[in-house]
Amino acid sequence: MIRVAVDAMGADRGPEEIVAGALAAASETVEPILVGPTGLETKGLSLLEAADVVAMDEKPAEAVRSKPNSSLVVACRAVAEGKADAVVSAGNTGAMLAACLLELRRIAGVRRPAIAVTIPARRGPSVLLDSGANADARPEDLVQFAHMGAVFAEEILDVRDPKIRLLSIGEEEEKGNQLTLEAHELLQASDLNFAGNTEGRDLLAGAADVIVTDGFTGNVVLKLLEGTIKNLLEAFREEITASLRGKIGGLLIRPGARRLRERLDPDTYGGAYLLGLRGLAVIAHGNSSQRAIANAVRLAARGVEHDVVGRLAQRIDATVLASRPSTTPTPT
Amino acid sequence: MIRVAVDAMGADRGPEEIVAGALAAASETVEPILVGPTGLETKGLSLLEAADVVAMDEKPAEAVRSKPNSSLVVACRAVAEGKADAVVSAGNTGAMLAACLLELRRIAGVRRPAIAVTIPARRGPSVLLDSGANADARPEDLVQFAHMGAVFAEEILDVRDPKIRLLSIGEEEEKGNQLTLEAHELLQASDLNFAGNTEGRDLLAGAADVIVTDGFTGNVVLKLLEGTIKNLLEAFREEITASLRGKIGGLLIRPGARRLRERLDPDTYGGAYLLGLRGLAVIAHGNSSQRAIANAVRLAARGVEHDVVGRLAQRIDATVLASRPSTTPTPT
Repeated sequence: MIRVAVDAMGADRGPEEIVAGALAAASETVEPILVGPTGLETKGLSLLEAADVVAMDEKPAEAVRSKPNSSLVVACRAVAEGKADAVVSAGNTGAMLAACLLELRRIAGVRRPAIAVTIPARRGPSVLLDSGANADARPEDLVQFAHMGAVFAEEILDVRDPKIRLLSIGEEEEKGNQLTLEAHELLQASDLNFAGNTEGRDLLAGAADVIVTDGFTGNVVLKLLEGTIKNLLEAFREEITASLRGKIGGLLIRPGARRLRERLDPDTYGGAYLLGLRGLAVIAHGNSSQRAIANAVRLAARGVEHDVVGRLAQRIDATVLASRPSTTPTPT
Repeated sequence: MIRVAVDAMGADRGPEEIVAGALAAASETVEPILVGPTGLETKGLSLLEAADVVAMDEKPAEAVRSKPNSSLVVACRAVAEGKADAVVSAGNTGAMLAACLLELRRIAGVRRPAIAVTIPARRGPSVLLDSGANADARPEDLVQFAHMGAVFAEEILDVRDPKIRLLSIGEEEEKGNQLTLEAHELLQASDLNFAGNTEGRDLLAGAADVIVTDGFTGNVVLKLLEGTIKNLLEAFREEITASLRGKIGGLLIRPGARRLRERLDPDTYGGAYLLGLRGLAVIAHGNSSQRAIANAVRLAARGVEHDVVGRLAQRIDATVLASRPSTTPTPT
C-alpha cells in the first residue's frame, strides 16, 4: 500500500475539493492520508492532525518557520518520518518548497531541487524543468536538472534513453546567453543523450523528452503556454459564436474540440514533482479541481512505485558532479 | 516622400518575394529602394547596387566585416549616408544587428539596442522588448528598453501614457530573478508609468502596452508564442477534419477561424523595429511573404513619419540614465 499525505488546506477551492480528489484516488494500492484540522470531514479517509494553515499570500520562509504545525509542514514531515511515502499539496508553492527543503532535505550532491512539469506536446508528453523552484541557476544546476529529467522520463513517461535538449534562442550551439552557453558545453561533455538546443517554437511540437532550463525562464514559459492555450481556445469560441452559422459549426466540431481541450488540460497531470529531495513531493496548482487532485495523488503514487527518489539518488551519486565537494546554498 | 532601403537578398523565399512586397508598399508617400545586384528585376523600383550577399548561416560579425558591399550592409549604410530614411531586411538577423550597430550606430546614452515586436494581444497590440537583440542584459538596460517601448507605444500604437510592465514569475515585486528584482526597483523609481510585474499567462490577454524583458527571455517567449499559436491551429484543424461531421462544422466556422488567424498572423506587422540606433531599422522574418515585406516597409515608413528615432533620442537624453557616464560595450 502506497500512503500519500495530502495537504487538505490552503488551496483556492477549499478542503472539500481536496478531500473529494483524494477520495477519488483511493484504491487497493493507494491510501491517501488527509492532513488538516480536527473535525475535517474526511469521507472515511484517515486524518493526520494539523492545527494551522499556511495562506496563499504568506511569505514562504516565514510561514514555514512560524507554523510548524500547519497542514503543509506536517504533510511534508509525515514523509520524513516514514508515516507517508509521498506528499501532495495545492497550497502556497513557495511555502511547499521551503517546507520540503526543511523537512525532506536535498539528496546528497544536489545543489538545487527543480520542479518538473509535464508538457502536453503533440508527439507525446515531455518534461520541462526547472519550472520555477529557483529563479537563478548556474550551468552545473542545469546539468543536474537534465539528470533529474532523464529519471522522470524513464520512470514516469516510459522512455528509454530519453533525449535531452536545452532551451535557448537558436539551435546552433553558439546561440544563447552566458548561462546556456556554459551549460551547453557541460551537457555535451556529460554521458546524457544530449541533442543540443531547442527553441520555444518547438516546445509544443515535442522537441525532446526532457527540456532543461533555469527556473525563471521555465516558469515564464510554463505560464505563457497555459495562458496562450486558454486565451486561444476562448478567442476561438468567441469568433465562432459570433454568428448563427458559426454556432451550428461549433456544435458539429464539439467532439474534436473536446479531445483537443482534454489533451491540453493541465488537470490531466494534476501536479508537478519537486525533484532532488529525499522524499517524493508533488506540487499541485492552487486552483486544482478534484480531478486535478486525484491525478496529483496518482502521480505521487506512481513516483513511489517507480522509486523515482532512489533512482535519482543513485544517478546523482554516479555522476562526476556529485564527486565534487558539494556546496549547499541556503534555501531562498 | 519617405525612402525605405529594402535589402532584396538573403531571405528564405528569394528576391522575387521581396521585390513584390516592396512594390506593394510603394505609394505616393513611400518610395522603396531595392538593394541588390546589378540586373535584379526591380519591377520599376529604383536599385541601389550591392554585389555581395550575406547568407542565413554566416557568422554575423564576420560576414558584416568581410562583406562591406553586401546588400544588407549597403542598405544600412544608405540610411547613415542619407540616401534612405529607413532600412528593412529579412536577411540574417544577427548580421542585420551587427550592420546596424556598425553603420547606424547607437543613440548617445543607449547601452544596448533592443528589438521591439508587436504582440497581437486580445485587448489590442502590445510591444515586447527586447525580443532578442542581446542575450544578456543588465537592470539599467531594461529601464532603457522601457523608454524605447514607451516611444513605440505612443508613436506607433497611438497610446497616451503607455502602461509598462516587467515580465517576471509573479506579480508581487519580491518575485523574480536577480535581474528583474533590480530592474523592478529602477523602474519604480523612474518617471515611467510602471504598473509592476506581469506573468507569461497574461501576455496574450494584453497585460500592458509595453512588456519589458531581457533578450533571452524575450526571444524564447516570442518563439514560444508563435509556435504555440501555429501548433494549436494545426491541432485544431486535425481534430476537426478527423470526421465528416467535423469537416462540415469546419466549413461553417471558417469565417470566424479566418478572422482569428488573421489577427494572430505575424505577417500583419511584418517586422520589428531595432530601437536605440541613430536611424530607423526594421527586421523582418527570414521567411517573410510579400505581404509581410509590404507591411514591414509600411512600418518603417510609419516610424519615419512619427520620428521615432528623434523622439527616442530626446527621451534618452532627458532621462537621468543618460546623464551618467555612458559605457559603450562592444557589439556582440
